[in-house]
Amino acid sequence: MVPTQYSLPDTSVLNTIAQAESLDNDRLIRLIQAGRVVVPRNPRRLCPPCAIGEGCKVKVNVNVGTSQGLCDPALEKEKAEAAIQNGAHTLMDLSTGGDLPAIRRMVLSSPVPVGTVPIYEAVRRAGSVRDVDADLLFTVIREHCRDGVDFLTLHCGVNQDVLRSLREDPRRMGVVSRGGSFHVAMMAAQEEENPLWSEFDYLCEILDEYQVVVSLGDGMRPGCHEDATREAKTVEYLNLGRLARRAHHLGIPRMIEGPGHMPLEQIGYNVRMIKELTDYAPLYLLGPLVTDIASGYDHVVGAIGGAIACKHGANFLCMVSPSEHLALPRVHDIIEGTRASVLAAHIGDLLAGREDARNREIMMGKARQELDWEKQFNLSLFPEVARSIHDRDQEKETCSMCGDLCAVKMVRDLFTTPDDNGTA
Amino acid sequence: MVPTQYSLPDTSVLNTIAQAESLDNDRLIRLIQAGRVVVPRNPRRLCPPCAIGEGCKVKVNVNVGTSQGLCDPALEKEKAEAAIQNGAHTLMDLSTGGDLPAIRRMVLSSPVPVGTVPIYEAVRRAGSVRDVDADLLFTVIREHCRDGVDFLTLHCGVNQDVLRSLREDPRRMGVVSRGGSFHVAMMAAQEEENPLWSEFDYLCEILDEYQVVVSLGDGMRPGCHEDATREAKTVEYLNLGRLARRAHHLGIPRMIEGPGHMPLEQIGYNVRMIKELTDYAPLYLLGPLVTDIASGYDHVVGAIGGAIACKHGANFLCMVSPSEHLALPRVHDIIEGTRASVLAAHIGDLLAGREDARNREIMMGKARQELDWEKQFNLSLFPEVARSIHDRDQEKETCSMCGDLCAVKMVRDLFTTPDDNGTA
Repeated sequence: MVPTQYSLPDTSVLNTIAQAESLDNDRLIRLIQAGRVVVPRNPRRLCPPCAIGEGCKVKVNVNVGTSQGLCDPALEKEKAEAAIQNGAHTLMDLSTGGDLPAIRRMVLSSPVPVGTVPIYEAVRRAGSVRDVDADLLFTVIREHCRDGVDFLTLHCGVNQDVLRSLREDPRRMGVVSRGGSFHVAMMAAQEEENPLWSEFDYLCEILDEYQVVVSLGDGMRPGCHEDATREAKTVEYLNLGRLARRAHHLGIPRMIEGPGHMPLEQIGYNVRMIKELTDYAPLYLLGPLVTDIASGYDHVVGAIGGAIACKHGANFLCMVSPSEHLALPRVHDIIEGTRASVLAAHIGDLLAGREDARNREIMMGKARQELDWEKQFNLSLFPEVARSIHDRDQEKETCSMCGDLCAVKMVRDLFTTPDDNGTA
Repeated sequence: MVPTQYSLPDTSVLNTIAQAESLDNDRLIRLIQAGRVVVPRNPRRLCPPCAIGEGCKVKVNVNVGTSQGLCDPALEKEKAEAAIQNGAHTLMDLSTGGDLPAIRRMVLSSPVPVGTVPIYEAVRRAGSVRDVDADLLFTVIREHCRDGVDFLTLHCGVNQDVLRSLREDPRRMGVVSRGGSFHVAMMAAQEEENPLWSEFDYLCEILDEYQVVVSLGDGMRPGCHEDATREAKTVEYLNLGRLARRAHHLGIPRMIEGPGHMPLEQIGYNVRMIKELTDYAPLYLLGPLVTDIASGYDHVVGAIGGAIACKHGANFLCMVSPSEHLALPRVHDIIEGTRASVLAAHIGDLLAGREDARNREIMMGKARQELDWEKQFNLSLFPEVARSIHDRDQEKETCSMCGDLCAVKMVRDLFTTPDDNGTA
């Protein structure tokens, strides 16, 4: 197989990325050429460059979008803005209600890479899952590409082998990926192969024409802990690996999406297995959710799973909101979910040994030792949150937790004042 | 050395614990005799039994208490109640402001084990750290025991060896444990050994008289990531191990307190090292905090570190509140911090392979598959939170996230309706 030549971003974009990621230009190019880093950036829109994958800071995606029961484009706009304000690197528009193209264009006005899941719109337009055909699906994909979408989640790996696994090694929750369930329902109703699998080369032609990144969706992500050890997800991993190799061969940049609900001790080997099977393609994770019983606090659960996943090689975390499993997120949910993911991503950067992340930790230790509050706020991931908690009380030199009994102050004075019993 | 005979709780208490922990009575007795499980329960108060250690569910402690700048006993009462309502198993009163004995008695009216840190009151009564002497400290300890306190954090391991380490291998943040800093300041000012170290046997006599558990404090817990690899904490681990053995020999039940600020990848070996050095005494953890730059979200950081610590053997998690490093917690901080810790403790139970924890996960998967919302709420760690998020929208059968496009519903209908293309 001839080594793939991906079309590289132009030099100024490469320089911007190399600088943002503290990466050497040559190494960045090698990582892109190896398919280990992608830069989702549709030429029709040219959003600010954002690199995802090995050697890059862990990135955070936030999902916005209407549902049929709750469709308020102004709310989605506010959510998109709140996400970016709190550190989201990309957005996905998962709308299923209202004027989908109009909402998509609204989300596309955001200054970050934007992803979509075309099957949602195809189902809406067909009126029912059973009536979606390949032509309609490819038409919608083309439209999203033309609108300037930077990456598309496409459940190409949900094929008849996967369906067989679902039947032969059934799972309690069946399929919980919405896109995955659409494809399963289509395939079962039509008794045909998933066109995204059988016509993958054709799909790649479209993606190549528009220079759009494919995110190979995880339609089989487990929906509960009990399902995490059933075979469907592994059959899909294998498919994603095959598709990742094929896309690579065709010069189509791709990411891989990963599980799902999963006990903490299973994250490591799952992440490594996916990375290995997909030749270390950038890995985009939802969760993993390491417990099923924390409804209302799934953002914290996702941060725990996400940090551990980063330890093993995840590159891109999808925000989980407090309203996961319960309701469409509101602005508050987006803020809390985004912050928890940004936090997990930073821990991921520390685990990857990133010097920029580590230096910020060191500077924070120094600011705390100096009781320099302004510096502490500025070094915080969420400066205004930190400031507002500290400033609610009167204690200005220390804080209202310990006041004059501040340990830092006590020992700092002791260890640094020369006439203080000679302990300095 | 003769095997220790700890005084065992009476049979009805043992039965209650064995049932709550799904432990066989004989195994529970063996674990207590081995010093691997403690039951903090002062005979003068007889709080409901709560076991901490190997084989038991991970427990959560919540700190309440006034400071000199913010002293409102009614607020502390409200915080104590909120903590218990949200799943705290024990409380610690860390008050340093106001009428300390009165506040302590208020906290002691709570229906859970209560811990205190006597050095705080000793410093308050002496007027300055330098003027605390052994007599005063032991007097305060006796008073706390007499009041019915169930466990005492005592920084017995902060001795001259530790002080030497601090000087020879200095740390950026010096000492961040408030109790630890008091002892360091005392020892440096008085040029004497820490009486809790040099007179440990005498301390044990007091504890024995009142049947109070000692929690061997971690005065040297690192205060920032940079400090985590300096030697002071390990010198203290060794001391805690020696004290744990001595206490065990004298029949004094003890727990060990552990770090602190620490990169995620260091948690495993630190927890295992402490467990090994202390003959697997119950391990009580603050954090660990796996990043220093998340002020305002340290409860999430603590949940991440806490879950990982449980994976390696931690038994008891101290809540970290969102106001950590910034201000004295308010009720809202206590609620959020407690929930994050309760969540981490449940993940710890899953990692320990507890069947009761795992069964609850399985039941939740089932409730989700059935779209049985009432069951989902009841199985949630925080039912009212889950209910209020779900019920804010109109969607009753599914939820406002997906509505009719619910993946669970789509695939469930598909896989279970017999006339549905024969896929059932």
